[in-house]
Amino acid sequence: MKEFKVDLTKRMDEQDVVGHNRWHPDIPAVFSVEPGGSFRLECIEWTDGQIKNNDDPSDVAMVNLERVHVLSGPVHVNGCEPGDLLVVDILDIGPLEPWGHNGIFAKENGGGFLVDHFPEAAKSIWDFHGIYTTSRHVPGVEFAGVMHPGLMGVAPSQELLDEWNHREKELFDTDPERVPPLAPLPTAEHVVLGSLKGEDFDRVAREGARTVPPRENGGNCDIKDLSKGSRTYFPVFVDGAKLSVGDLHFSQGDGEITFCGAIEMSGFIELRVDVIKGGMAKYNIKKNPVYEPGPVSPDYNEFLVFQGVSVKENGQQTYLDANVAFKNACLNAIEYLKTLGYTGEQAYMLLSSAPVQANLASVVDIPNSCATIGIPKAIFKKDILPK
Amino acid sequence: MKEFKVDLTKRMDEQDVVGHNRWHPDIPAVFSVEPGGSFRLECIEWTDGQIKNNDDPSDVAMVNLERVHVLSGPVHVNGCEPGDLLVVDILDIGPLEPWGHNGIFAKENGGGFLVDHFPEAAKSIWDFHGIYTTSRHVPGVEFAGVMHPGLMGVAPSQELLDEWNHREKELFDTDPERVPPLAPLPTAEHVVLGSLKGEDFDRVAREGARTVPPRENGGNCDIKDLSKGSRTYFPVFVDGAKLSVGDLHFSQGDGEITFCGAIEMSGFIELRVDVIKGGMAKYNIKKNPVYEPGPVSPDYNEFLVFQGVSVKENGQQTYLDANVAFKNACLNAIEYLKTLGYTGEQAYMLLSSAPVQANLASVVDIPNSCATIGIPKAIFKKDILPK
Amino acid sequence: MKEFKVDLTKRMDEQDVVGHNRWHPDIPAVFSVEPGGSFRLECIEWTDGQIKNNDDPSDVAMVNLERVHVLSGPVHVNGCEPGDLLVVDILDIGPLEPWGHNGIFAKENGGGFLVDHFPEAAKSIWDFHGIYTTSRHVPGVEFAGVMHPGLMGVAPSQELLDEWNHREKELFDTDPERVPPLAPLPTAEHVVLGSLKGEDFDRVAREGARTVPPRENGGNCDIKDLSKGSRTYFPVFVDGAKLSVGDLHFSQGDGEITFCGAIEMSGFIELRVDVIKGGMAKYNIKKNPVYEPGPVSPDYNEFLVFQGVSVKENGQQTYLDANVAFKNACLNAIEYLKTLGYTGEQAYMLLSSAPVQANLASVVDIPNSCATIGIPKAIFKKDILPK
Amino acid sequence: MKEFKVDLTKRMDEQDVVGHNRWHPDIPAVFSVEPGGSFRLECIEWTDGQIKNNDDPSDVAMVNLERVHVLSGPVHVNGCEPGDLLVVDILDIGPLEPWGHNGIFAKENGGGFLVDHFPEAAKSIWDFHGIYTTSRHVPGVEFAGVMHPGLMGVAPSQELLDEWNHREKELFDTDPERVPPLAPLPTAEHVVLGSLKGEDFDRVAREGARTVPPRENGGNCDIKDLSKGSRTYFPVFVDGAKLSVGDLHFSQGDGEITFCGAIEMSGFIELRVDVIKGGMAKYNIKKNPVYEPGPVSPDYNEFLVFQGVSVKENGQQTYLDANVAFKNACLNAIEYLKTLGYTGEQAYMLLSSAPVQANLASVVDIPNSCATIGIPKAIFKKDILPK
Repeated sequence: MKEFKVDLTKRMDEQDVVGHNRWHPDIPAVFSVEPGGSFRLECIEWTDGQIKNNDDPSDVAMVNLERVHVLSGPVHVNGCEPGDLLVVDILDIGPLEPWGHNGIFAKENGGGFLVDHFPEAAKSIWDFHGIYTTSRHVPGVEFAGVMHPGLMGVAPSQELLDEWNHREKELFDTDPERVPPLAPLPTAEHVVLGSLKGEDFDRVAREGARTVPPRENGGNCDIKDLSKGSRTYFPVFVDGAKLSVGDLHFSQGDGEITFCGAIEMSGFIELRVDVIKGGMAKYNIKKNPVYEPGPVSPDYNEFLVFQGVSVKENGQQTYLDANVAFKNACLNAIEYLKTLGYTGEQAYMLLSSAPVQANLASVVDIPNSCATIGIPKAIFKKDILPK
Repeated sequence: MKEFKVDLTKRMDEQDVVGHNRWHPDIPAVFSVEPGGSFRLECIEWTDGQIKNNDDPSDVAMVNLERVHVLSGPVHVNGCEPGDLLVVDILDIGPLEPWGHNGIFAKENGGGFLVDHFPEAAKSIWDFHGIYTTSRHVPGVEFAGVMHPGLMGVAPSQELLDEWNHREKELFDTDPERVPPLAPLPTAEHVVLGSLKGEDFDRVAREGARTVPPRENGGNCDIKDLSKGSRTYFPVFVDGAKLSVGDLHFSQGDGEITFCGAIEMSGFIELRVDVIKGGMAKYNIKKNPVYEPGPVSPDYNEFLVFQGVSVKENGQQTYLDANVAFKNACLNAIEYLKTLGYTGEQAYMLLSSAPVQANLASVVDIPNSCATIGIPKAIFKKDILPK
Repeated sequence: MKEFKVDLTKRMDEQDVVGHNRWHPDIPAVFSVEPGGSFRLECIEWTDGQIKNNDDPSDVAMVNLERVHVLSGPVHVNGCEPGDLLVVDILDIGPLEPWGHNGIFAKENGGGFLVDHFPEAAKSIWDFHGIYTTSRHVPGVEFAGVMHPGLMGVAPSQELLDEWNHREKELFDTDPERVPPLAPLPTAEHVVLGSLKGEDFDRVAREGARTVPPRENGGNCDIKDLSKGSRTYFPVFVDGAKLSVGDLHFSQGDGEITFCGAIEMSGFIELRVDVIKGGMAKYNIKKNPVYEPGPVSPDYNEFLVFQGVSVKENGQQTYLDANVAFKNACLNAIEYLKTLGYTGEQAYMLLSSAPVQANLASVVDIPNSCATIGIPKAIFKKDILPK
Repeated sequence: MKEFKVDLTKRMDEQDVVGHNRWHPDIPAVFSVEPGGSFRLECIEWTDGQIKNNDDPSDVAMVNLERVHVLSGPVHVNGCEPGDLLVVDILDIGPLEPWGHNGIFAKENGGGFLVDHFPEAAKSIWDFHGIYTTSRHVPGVEFAGVMHPGLMGVAPSQELLDEWNHREKELFDTDPERVPPLAPLPTAEHVVLGSLKGEDFDRVAREGARTVPPRENGGNCDIKDLSKGSRTYFPVFVDGAKLSVGDLHFSQGDGEITFCGAIEMSGFIELRVDVIKGGMAKYNIKKNPVYEPGPVSPDYNEFLVFQGVSVKENGQQTYLDANVAFKNACLNAIEYLKTLGYTGEQAYMLLSSAPVQANLASVVDIPNSCATIGIPKAIFKKDILPK
């Protein structure tokens, strides 16, 4: 079985075979596979090893986001052409080290979903015990991880890449001085581009799309249920599809609300690929992958569910703003968790790390959307229900 | 067991005991119950019988929304005071007639979530076969309903009501000529207020908040998993809590995207209530109910999941707009369903009617949010997977 | 929709349309339906109303078992012939009264599975609260019922009936004086045979097989998961299939170990039938129905599981006797439940009433079989785990 | 983390640290752990490597059963004494090689559950693809394994051991010439006893109980749901409890009906232990472990279920013999699978390998027990339902 290996004592650009941290059609494949074939990718955690297993959040505070996400690949699938669907089965996934991290980004680094409440950096380290995890920084919980790749995507065509760069620059330019910026634009700093060299490297470094946002090619979708046994159908934009993976998570809550984000880990993933010729037109899958969850997700099915509606905290009524509704659901959950003895920061990191579910309940009941966040009761070592 | 009964051949204001269709603390209770007690409410479907079991969508097109939602109650819970939590168990729920309806609202009526794609009114009738439903208007599917009340809420205090009216008027006034309006404001037309009469009626009719938006009191949350066996904890704002219920659904997809909405039905609901004294402060549940789903939801656990990111259809990049992301997920799902032979309208109504799941996958990966919509494979009579 | 109605104040032989309590091909159908059609049957609880809602178990002690099971039907399915498969969907099921009963049969009445430990009659009454049930006789538990027909079957051919009577008589004759008897043989006492009269009645009464044992036609299988939404494929032995139903259960534990047995109720069931022509040969379903469980079973998925092996309580080693293994698993569970404060009788009735799962873990590890019984933790109002 | 390692190119008695294949209190521990501690055991597949990855079943036919099961351990838990409960969490489990085997034992070797129908040896090799497995010998299926230890147990006290040997000898002596024997008695041949030597070895070899049957100490229970994340409470009979594990399975059907048995593999298991002092008396757990299944079992929840009643194939009526009922359920399932194109042997091995569920539906409906076997529909690559 073909394999992309990493040495966790080195950074991605120092590996024997180098991965990448930008999206571009011209990044060379690390190897090729036949349809029906399987392969294994080892992945460094998304920041390329910047976050350490200690109690000091200064590494989170000072993280270099131009370095993210370090990806393993791309893998060329023989016979796969634009217009096809690439079928990707996640056969297995696991950690390379017995710990991972979650953190709250400081406001200067983009912050998280609740940046106005939690502007300072924080960090929690999660120790892995087989399928379970616990944290010395968030006591009283133990849960099984739904391990998954936060980021899995195929290469964009040059045309699609140009479209990304155009639309994101346009947004950025509406408020170019904003901290944090409205969008992470291409930057030649801290670029890793596989085996590219010379002029090609310089050109691709200038053009390569940042990996933070999910886009038509999949990418950083951070879908917590895309776990072992799942099958994804990717639209294909370039010859060979050029599949890359990174940002492995031991566990994540829907929304990945702290931004840094899930329980981030270095790990391995084993994939099997196949091709549906002409599938994009046949199934109208023109952009954004489609997927089927796998059969081995942790079976947490008893939840305590909080809801929020789209009225801002200052009392201002929005028109169906789902972000505001979900923000309120998160804040309501955090207020509740405080009554169990957690600090706001602990509760915030827990919501981002544990297998919580975020649902859009209603998006049409003008002027209020209603969003919910459900916390599995079984992750707590004590009963958390109101009495 | 105390009971609120309805005669389905009459409108709500013609019933022996009259319900209501506005939120106000002064609407008199229809009966009172002790903590620990159970009772049964019969409910007319949300439009007060305006939608008929036929193939003509003109009733949906011309629906009078000032009439909605006709609610059963309020029920006074003895000994329940502001600051308490009202615990409500849904013991049972079922239809009073063997059919329900789903519809797409015309743009003039507010439209639905995808109003720009589907500006015309449409209707689908769903026949009930025990736990299952089918529709002559959406062939090829049969599924078990997760029956639930779209709307369940307690009365607001006068102070909370004033806040609602203030903030919604403020939004409305930002574009008062807009069609549809940004918010449904109080209107004395088509008001139903229980046994209120005279000056009290006139005052409450002027002030009573419309029932469309979900708010701090619960209300029209349209949470599809709030089904049989669920337990809800409501914050209490007035003496006796004054619980009301309506808008029963045989089934609904997350988001209720067509607005009219779920599979709407006339039905009954059996509830049991209890009180946690001082629970609002003890558990920091100051606004918005918290709930636990019940143990008998249909166990559809194999999904085909579509995703969307927050780039508008015209190519414009938004900053983390979850509404746009979810809209794209819905449109991607509809495009796929078209390849199975459905019209866009059929697919749209199916997503609003069947037990589909809408999740917020990531809300921090600037500038793109990622939202997903998962369709249970088992509702289709044939295999729907790409091959 | 065609319907078989019962008046619960009358016994089965006093109903306007009379059901039956024996298996025989010549019992006339109560009505006929077309393939694809639906119908509704009301059913008296299995003893024909002998057990009352009170605290006195003497009715259980003195129950007349020649009267059981009173069945509703048979229903003739048009066009259905021997060799076909009859497809039966359970569309709905529910109680006609808000209570049911469980009991331990006295040894003289056959006793239950643990008759040597519990030779005396006992009774528990279970009150229904929508989907939930509680019992004044077994405090501290509340659970959702997986409502199902304990007995659903098609008529045997005369040849099959003769085979039944022959083989059961042969067993009986190995110890004809045994109390309880080894098999319930045909008896003309307390027979109910629909509209049959005169000589036909007398003949069928003499020949009609008792309804207690499950057999090739389905019958009293007492399968707790055969609930709402399930689909059963019956082999067909006579023209019209002649489907009958009775012995409705609000809930039952695997094994139905007390014999009387589940939470027995009078109720209704709504069915839809279809026919697969020649299906018996096509699918090798020559005897015993095959079924698919439905999608709305209570989702209790956290269990505490007890096991037993096939060594008798007196220390005697058996050779792979699964009955002994399961008996030990039940006794182990009862011993544990006693430490929670239950009496042995309460624990025994709880295991027979609640949705417990009985599995055969291994049946080959000579000389010990291993069987398990799993109790859902969520049915208890307090935490039951060892600490 | 302490670890018991194996070299798969060597037999158990050739390992650096040697395990054992008999139960006896005097087998020395391989290491000790503190309560709360975790450790890792590598395990050779149960036959000590006798079965090879090829297409020739002669190794199954000629397997030496005096060699089984080779176990890893025992592990001494500090401070654990007779009368305590030993709490064992399975943190992780996985294969050491990418394949496993299932086989039908020949009649001379004990045969399997259906030995009269399948008296010849057969073998199927199962390749592992991450969480999934397929077999070149049983085409058309792919399923996720519920990996588990078939055998996990604590050491018996000398008194308990004597009781085992006594009762099993008594059974054996009822038919000492029988092939296969009624029980596997102690034999000094092919014994592996850790670091024991000299006279101690000889004595323990003579007395040591065979590992095939499950008993009061747990042992070879072959419970398929005892998987990742499960917690088991063992009664403790000797100081330190002396926990041993072996017989790892990639997947197994309830009943493990072919005897050889599951998908047998060499693998690792990671465990965490704790102690409940005096727990045996406190919770009446005097014999046989109690367990809670874990949260990550494959979520196969759509089954096709076959049933059987306790009438022998020759038409003879038994009295509630659950073995006969389950045998008929298995045979009914096999007959059905034949219509899908499988041979009887393939179907038999599939039922023993895939996550099928065997339930005791009713055990009291004299004279027929009813047992069921449910096959998950999703393991087949095509739709298997009757049409």
